[in-house]
Amino acid sequence: MWGGRFASGPSAIMEAINASIDFDKRLYREDIAGSIAHAEMLGRQGIISTADAAEIRQGLETIRTEITEGRFAFSKAREDIHMNVEARLAELIGPAAGRLHTARSRNDQVAVDFRLFVKRAAEDLDRALRALQEALLARAEEHAATVMPGFTHLQAAQPVTFGHHCLAYVEMAGRDRGRVRDAIRRMDESPLGAAALAGTGFPIDRHATAEALGFREPTRNSLDSVSDRDYALEFLSAAAICATHLSRLAEEIVIWSTPQFDFVRLSDAFSTGSSIMPQKKNPDAAELVRAKTGRIAGSLVALLTIMKGLPLSYSKDMQEDKEQVFDAIDSLALALAAMTGMVSDLQVNAAKMRAAAGAGFSTATDLADWLVRELGLPFREAHHVTGRVVALAEERRVALEDLPLADLRSIEARIGQEIYSVLSVDASVASRTSFGGTAPDGVRAQAAAWRERLASEG
Amino acid sequence: MWGGRFASGPSAIMEAINASIDFDKRLYREDIAGSIAHAEMLGRQGIISTADAAEIRQGLETIRTEITEGRFAFSKAREDIHMNVEARLAELIGPAAGRLHTARSRNDQVAVDFRLFVKRAAEDLDRALRALQEALLARAEEHAATVMPGFTHLQAAQPVTFGHHCLAYVEMAGRDRGRVRDAIRRMDESPLGAAALAGTGFPIDRHATAEALGFREPTRNSLDSVSDRDYALEFLSAAAICATHLSRLAEEIVIWSTPQFDFVRLSDAFSTGSSIMPQKKNPDAAELVRAKTGRIAGSLVALLTIMKGLPLSYSKDMQEDKEQVFDAIDSLALALAAMTGMVSDLQVNAAKMRAAAGAGFSTATDLADWLVRELGLPFREAHHVTGRVVALAEERRVALEDLPLADLRSIEARIGQEIYSVLSVDASVASRTSFGGTAPDGVRAQAAAWRERLASEG
Amino acid sequence: MWGGRFASGPSAIMEAINASIDFDKRLYREDIAGSIAHAEMLGRQGIISTADAAEIRQGLETIRTEITEGRFAFSKAREDIHMNVEARLAELIGPAAGRLHTARSRNDQVAVDFRLFVKRAAEDLDRALRALQEALLARAEEHAATVMPGFTHLQAAQPVTFGHHCLAYVEMAGRDRGRVRDAIRRMDESPLGAAALAGTGFPIDRHATAEALGFREPTRNSLDSVSDRDYALEFLSAAAICATHLSRLAEEIVIWSTPQFDFVRLSDAFSTGSSIMPQKKNPDAAELVRAKTGRIAGSLVALLTIMKGLPLSYSKDMQEDKEQVFDAIDSLALALAAMTGMVSDLQVNAAKMRAAAGAGFSTATDLADWLVRELGLPFREAHHVTGRVVALAEERRVALEDLPLADLRSIEARIGQEIYSVLSVDASVASRTSFGGTAPDGVRAQAAAWRERLASEG
Amino acid sequence: MWGGRFASGPSAIMEAINASIDFDKRLYREDIAGSIAHAEMLGRQGIISTADAAEIRQGLETIRTEITEGRFAFSKAREDIHMNVEARLAELIGPAAGRLHTARSRNDQVAVDFRLFVKRAAEDLDRALRALQEALLARAEEHAATVMPGFTHLQAAQPVTFGHHCLAYVEMAGRDRGRVRDAIRRMDESPLGAAALAGTGFPIDRHATAEALGFREPTRNSLDSVSDRDYALEFLSAAAICATHLSRLAEEIVIWSTPQFDFVRLSDAFSTGSSIMPQKKNPDAAELVRAKTGRIAGSLVALLTIMKGLPLSYSKDMQEDKEQVFDAIDSLALALAAMTGMVSDLQVNAAKMRAAAGAGFSTATDLADWLVRELGLPFREAHHVTGRVVALAEERRVALEDLPLADLRSIEARIGQEIYSVLSVDASVASRTSFGGTAPDGVRAQAAAWRERLASEG
Repeated sequence: MWGGRFASGPSAIMEAINASIDFDKRLYREDIAGSIAHAEMLGRQGIISTADAAEIRQGLETIRTEITEGRFAFSKAREDIHMNVEARLAELIGPAAGRLHTARSRNDQVAVDFRLFVKRAAEDLDRALRALQEALLARAEEHAATVMPGFTHLQAAQPVTFGHHCLAYVEMAGRDRGRVRDAIRRMDESPLGAAALAGTGFPIDRHATAEALGFREPTRNSLDSVSDRDYALEFLSAAAICATHLSRLAEEIVIWSTPQFDFVRLSDAFSTGSSIMPQKKNPDAAELVRAKTGRIAGSLVALLTIMKGLPLSYSKDMQEDKEQVFDAIDSLALALAAMTGMVSDLQVNAAKMRAAAGAGFSTATDLADWLVRELGLPFREAHHVTGRVVALAEERRVALEDLPLADLRSIEARIGQEIYSVLSVDASVASRTSFGGTAPDGVRAQAAAWRERLASEG
Repeated sequence: MWGGRFASGPSAIMEAINASIDFDKRLYREDIAGSIAHAEMLGRQGIISTADAAEIRQGLETIRTEITEGRFAFSKAREDIHMNVEARLAELIGPAAGRLHTARSRNDQVAVDFRLFVKRAAEDLDRALRALQEALLARAEEHAATVMPGFTHLQAAQPVTFGHHCLAYVEMAGRDRGRVRDAIRRMDESPLGAAALAGTGFPIDRHATAEALGFREPTRNSLDSVSDRDYALEFLSAAAICATHLSRLAEEIVIWSTPQFDFVRLSDAFSTGSSIMPQKKNPDAAELVRAKTGRIAGSLVALLTIMKGLPLSYSKDMQEDKEQVFDAIDSLALALAAMTGMVSDLQVNAAKMRAAAGAGFSTATDLADWLVRELGLPFREAHHVTGRVVALAEERRVALEDLPLADLRSIEARIGQEIYSVLSVDASVASRTSFGGTAPDGVRAQAAAWRERLASEG
Repeated sequence: MWGGRFASGPSAIMEAINASIDFDKRLYREDIAGSIAHAEMLGRQGIISTADAAEIRQGLETIRTEITEGRFAFSKAREDIHMNVEARLAELIGPAAGRLHTARSRNDQVAVDFRLFVKRAAEDLDRALRALQEALLARAEEHAATVMPGFTHLQAAQPVTFGHHCLAYVEMAGRDRGRVRDAIRRMDESPLGAAALAGTGFPIDRHATAEALGFREPTRNSLDSVSDRDYALEFLSAAAICATHLSRLAEEIVIWSTPQFDFVRLSDAFSTGSSIMPQKKNPDAAELVRAKTGRIAGSLVALLTIMKGLPLSYSKDMQEDKEQVFDAIDSLALALAAMTGMVSDLQVNAAKMRAAAGAGFSTATDLADWLVRELGLPFREAHHVTGRVVALAEERRVALEDLPLADLRSIEARIGQEIYSVLSVDASVASRTSFGGTAPDGVRAQAAAWRERLASEG
Repeated sequence: MWGGRFASGPSAIMEAINASIDFDKRLYREDIAGSIAHAEMLGRQGIISTADAAEIRQGLETIRTEITEGRFAFSKAREDIHMNVEARLAELIGPAAGRLHTARSRNDQVAVDFRLFVKRAAEDLDRALRALQEALLARAEEHAATVMPGFTHLQAAQPVTFGHHCLAYVEMAGRDRGRVRDAIRRMDESPLGAAALAGTGFPIDRHATAEALGFREPTRNSLDSVSDRDYALEFLSAAAICATHLSRLAEEIVIWSTPQFDFVRLSDAFSTGSSIMPQKKNPDAAELVRAKTGRIAGSLVALLTIMKGLPLSYSKDMQEDKEQVFDAIDSLALALAAMTGMVSDLQVNAAKMRAAAGAGFSTATDLADWLVRELGLPFREAHHVTGRVVALAEERRVALEDLPLADLRSIEARIGQEIYSVLSVDASVASRTSFGGTAPDGVRAQAAAWRERLASEG
């Protein structure tokens, strides 16, 4: 495999640490597509005969079928997917196989295969995020007016609607998709033709192979082409941020599923029982989604550390990129599917949400705002007055709206009967009509805008 | 500060862990800009009087001057930049100050201040990356034909030019800039007006404040607006990838500066001596640039970990975002400035590069390609023949081009005298004319294309 | 500063990236202690005169006083603490100062200063962890029999006691202390005398300086001595694991402080209010403690990344070690102090805990165990029977102990009246007498054992 | 599997995210050992009959054989190794199988299995580190007097010996082993008997099961027992630091293997060739070892992030611990084996090392020290004089020892002929006799001390 020059073969340890076929066989479609594009271009450019090019194509297609159908015997001694395919090609078509590697190197094969794979995975991720957005949108529309507590510090702060809460995650997923698409656009350049690192003297047509493989254009620097793993790092970054979003919703589901909160119930499909506590219904899927964040952040750290301080161009360290990215792809796909399922299935306990929204003097801000608006108090003074009202209500152990007017007036004499109309959670929510606010009509408008945006994507 | 409700003040420990003024005072320009935009909008909307709005603006401008001139007394008891400014405003203009906080919350102040700051830092980063590109381009143009070894595995593989090597980093910096600009575009939405988390009932105009602050538009979901730190995470991701690029060039500079390589010499301005070894000239700046990668990756990990599993909307955990981002901004700015300086100043030892490029049978591929092209050998067979030639040259301890023709013919009888014209490093480099290859004309063309691209940016 | 050899001084950028005095001045006590130990040893060994040694000592003590009292003028041009001290010494005592650096290098000064500092910080950390253990133990003793739900998946699983829960954290802190002490023992070797990297030809006595500085012994390899940052990495690892423990308790405090759980109330000293929601009482300190985990993990990642792939011996990259460790020391000290304060101060709502412990059929396992013990059912069958009982109770919307005997017998005919004595939370808790179990007597015994262990530490 | 209570089974997504059998089957030996210990204890304590206990043991041993011999049909529907084994046991021995789970829960099974596994892996790691120490010691003894450059900043600083350099890594591996052993000691406590989380009312004997499984003692708190993953985190921390050490040596091997340095040659067994550049001999194994650092640091970050903020006791997030630890175990084992092989096999080019040691005025410190020792110059003045001598030699382009005495005297008149005896690299190295210094006799003494230490381990 590496010429006639080595006295002894690699030891068993070396094979174990060096061979990548166990994981890079996952790139077989990309490897074969890259080889076909290269061979046909070589044929068109007259670098090899068109007969050879055709034979190579046919052989590669046979191999693709063999692998897809599970009939291919992968060999660890042949180290990686590239050598496995090439060696099999030689078995199938004989000497012509030896011409495929003209004007090409394993370095640019590695680069083109993995980049194609990551690009496709990113496209899948974009689709999965859209599915999550749609699941969230459906719940947002359904619950545009379902009142729940809006939390800060996990303390009820002001009433919001569950629909509004769902839309916050639609926004996050929207940014995630933006990041993924930007990454796709940036990686959409074909490194094929960089050869080992310096380009080649054969009259190849890199624009043609780029087009054949669905890339926008070829890369512009051959050294960079075989040294670059930005596409993997950028994919992992976007995945890590996305996973962080999922972890937040997962955490909320875990907390909301406690009997203490009881805001939502997970479907049986996304819960599990306990081997010793028959009554338990555990939010396992949400916990596992939450945990994937760590896993994906770990993969990002791994690859950043691996790439740190590597001189150009290719170093074998870079072979460690694939397992990290594969693992992140699988973990995130699973987490997104599980989250989309949970969101679609979960049962909302509107009564509990509403009760919680009303507790804890959550409309105190509405009182303060009223004092500003109607009595012209400076906000800070209104805040102070409200603080005293809340203290009184707490002392009496009643809700704000259950304080008698006389008590309210003992603190601020100008408060009138109309104050009771601003102290209910529905009034509070309905009043938040500022752009992006939680008023049910605003929630419906934002949901509609998102529907339109998704529809326009086709 | 938090109403009249608390029996005892926060303890000393609490103050130490809770107060952020020591670092968030760095946001003073953004905080004041945000408050002015808010106040003027309140005035225009009739929520406060225009007289109050004008007084607030004037007071805030006074405070900005005080801070800029170092005459402002920051107070830890006032916890953060927002309360420090507000309290001072009350001292300066009295009761009108209390109206500034109408229809606003510290939560959206935090969000708008930090987002503005990160956006500006990202714009600075883009400019610093452009400066690095220009420094690299100048060296690339100068050394478009300076032959050096192209390395894989830090072993000389094929000759390339130093200009080509510099352009590889121009490409990386180009992608870095793309990431930074995409991040800017994505964060270019104003959260101001989200209020505490639910929006507000006051008739505010969020589009106006967004415009006044230079944002493209307002955010669409108030919960998301105060919960979101994507802009910080995305900035840190882009910074970490950029730092990884710098670490690679820094590593090369460290290696190239050894007497063993002696490819480049750093200027005195970017080296240091030793307290005990007077002869040393150490690449400290390059090493420190390399180390910053760890620091920035650490900040990214910190914020990803902090955000993991936080329920919406604001939790105090998020206060830990600032120091991480500040540190990454400063570290990267310094690293870029140092790298730009090193690249501009470093002295290239073309003779040493050239000699190294010719050693190690680095034109063996050219021989193999010749066998394919001229004799029609399948690549794999040409590779095998070349391996035997190299083994012979190694045995004789001579360069490829110093093997007598008879010896070459003893391995492959059809090799002719013309072979010697492909075995020189200049011939090798000149032959790599494929798009993005290392041929000096190609390097010049790519440099020119980059010059044009930069010029078109204005 | 670096001899007479450099044509031009370092540029401003270089000074900014290179100078460490802004942070390493924190090592002044260690630097001066190291220099005094070195000078006195030089004097005793006759390498310098005892008069010079005495003068050096006196000068260094003066400098220590100047720094401690804030009268020392640190200079950035003098780069670091070592050169600042040395230059000042020359001003104070003249030529004798020049003899201090005999048989020594900045490399081993850096190594000895930082190691001494980390060692002291680790000792402080051990003490802070002990204080936390004591605070937890006090609450454990107080609440040895206070019943609360034991959670898995944040779902009530089986009743435990709050004291038992507190002791779980005593165990964690115990392991943290073990890790810190092991780290101290491992770093307790003096690198002083490694000189630049190779040792020295002067007849120094490294055992003497090791002893004078309180180290167990000198290091055994001079190259390793100046290259090693294991002590910093190990400290950061232990700190990161410890922070993870704190984050778990912090998360519990955040959740338990919600009105929904209402298990604990934080004292005012460790809560804050809201600028717009006067009723809020936010667990800011707990959230900030939780966030510090990210920060400390980030520092660990930073230093691991920095050290990756550094050839021996000293590289300037290693200068980046200090800020990471300083930040982790400060963050963890603050987090521990805040957590110790919160634990000591928090008010336990035993009634709420008890009620929650009884909900959710949390004694189902006790029923299953009874079926095994008394009726001889195989566990899996008992589990199945219990599942049917729980389903019935859920259908009837009653607690297990409120199901009539007839209903129980309809599922398993042999169940008798005595079953009701195992279905209460007190009975459940009291029954868990296995070693390390939650029975109040067991909790008391474990608390007593910990008291003894702490007492024996002195 | 989870009682009769769930209406619908878990969906396919749920199975995919939830099932752990694909990776936790690796725990089968530990799972079966734990079950046998538990069953026999139950029998001895009279909780189950001794006949049942014997039948269970026999069944479990059969299963162990089935798995070892590859005849066991793992089922994903049975989710994990625990349920797979239990279900098979029921098939094999019928109802008695149902009694095995008495006084036990999956939670403590998970805890005991994984802890046992990690403990064994840590013991293996200790052995692998010892093997590396022995390989390094052999090279250190062989090359106790082989002079090479001692580097700082990758610049030759002072001559050292290759043996001394090897011993630096022996020290690092020694600390690694210390960390691993401390971790083993700390994790050497059996969680078995913690049951679900609260302990149990059955009269189990936890000390007996601890002893049967080779643990020092049982854990002291049942909640902690099922919540704790410190042993995994501490293992990963120690592994990450160890990997950092390996990365440093790997980096040196990569650099030393360049033709420019040519200090060492890797054996063919640990190099690879190139598919297009027949002359290449690449240090792939060293590069892959270097890359593993990133992978292991990534696993540590993953688990730290996963554990952050998890309330007690068990949460499903913790299931993500295994793959991270398995991957780190395998990666580190492979990296250590490869490094041990490389160290043993590599060919040292003593001539090149020696020549490099003499270049670059590397004995300048020796000159400075001579000026201090013989002429009584203060160190800083000696440093300055030496700087001028070096500048002169550089100007003349000669080595220090080739400067005529007259030239030396033009700078410092008192320099005599004897100076030439201190300027050779051998003299320099031989003079460094301080404890831990590089003098060949010191290197031999340290190597002998290590041999003794290893011998005393048995």
